[in-house]
Amino acid sequence: MTFQVHPRLQQDSIEIGRFNLSRLLLINDSQYPWFVLVPERIDITEIYQLSETDQQVLQQESSLLAKMLADNYHADKMNIAAIGNLVPQLHIHHIVRYKNDIAWPAPVWGKYDAVPYSKPQLEKTKTKIKILLKENLI
Amino acid sequence: MTFQVHPRLQQDSIEIGRFNLSRLLLINDSQYPWFVLVPERIDITEIYQLSETDQQVLQQESSLLAKMLADNYHADKMNIAAIGNLVPQLHIHHIVRYKNDIAWPAPVWGKYDAVPYSKPQLEKTKTKIKILLKENLI
Repeated sequence: MTFQVHPRLQQDSIEIGRFNLSRLLLINDSQYPWFVLVPERIDITEIYQLSETDQQVLQQESSLLAKMLADNYHADKMNIAAIGNLVPQLHIHHIVRYKNDIAWPAPVWGKYDAVPYSKPQLEKTKTKIKILLKENLI
Repeated sequence: MTFQVHPRLQQDSIEIGRFNLSRLLLINDSQYPWFVLVPERIDITEIYQLSETDQQVLQQESSLLAKMLADNYHADKMNIAAIGNLVPQLHIHHIVRYKNDIAWPAPVWGKYDAVPYSKPQLEKTKTKIKILLKENLI
């Protein structure tokens, strides 16, 4: 059985990069810079089910991503969460939050319907992230 | 400057245990088994601001707690999150979720007002957690 991102996550996002352990997805909601890490492991729903090594790698990937986003998007706060009540496949949200974003100070889930990116916005975001990843991974 | 749990967290919770790095709090809301880890570090608002060693220890403490809660409370899902939009001091939620809990499948934050534990309920929960911690830490 090969790893596949859960269909519902695929539907809501664009794959934008790969770390050693995790796929990096951009959630298609232009209201917040909202990213998701999905460790490429099968049948895992909770972080503690990963091997100890995978847990440490995930922590490193999460912190690299969070710092990169916080610095470059000038976040007021990062929201990092493994929820998974609707999509059981382990995935970790990394959301850039601003004190003037539409949902602040509430968490974003279930708050407002997604507003998809326009094609040019999406291309711009993809390019930005690809450059940031290159700068931060080398 | 000595470490202190943020006054707002203190107000909403009961300190129930200590790990090497983090304090363990029980949120005083009987609607969900809801715990919080607070690393005993000053002026930290994001996980990536912790030293690499502290990040790894936090990951270990988080997984130990999450597995212990999932197993003993027979969770349908664990919700683990560092949000901090209202309380800036780094704290990581660990919430036992059930498919028949009041907020499922929504996240719990901002959903329903807390229903505090009764004194006997609180004593029972404290005793349960203390026994579990002893069993899992030795």
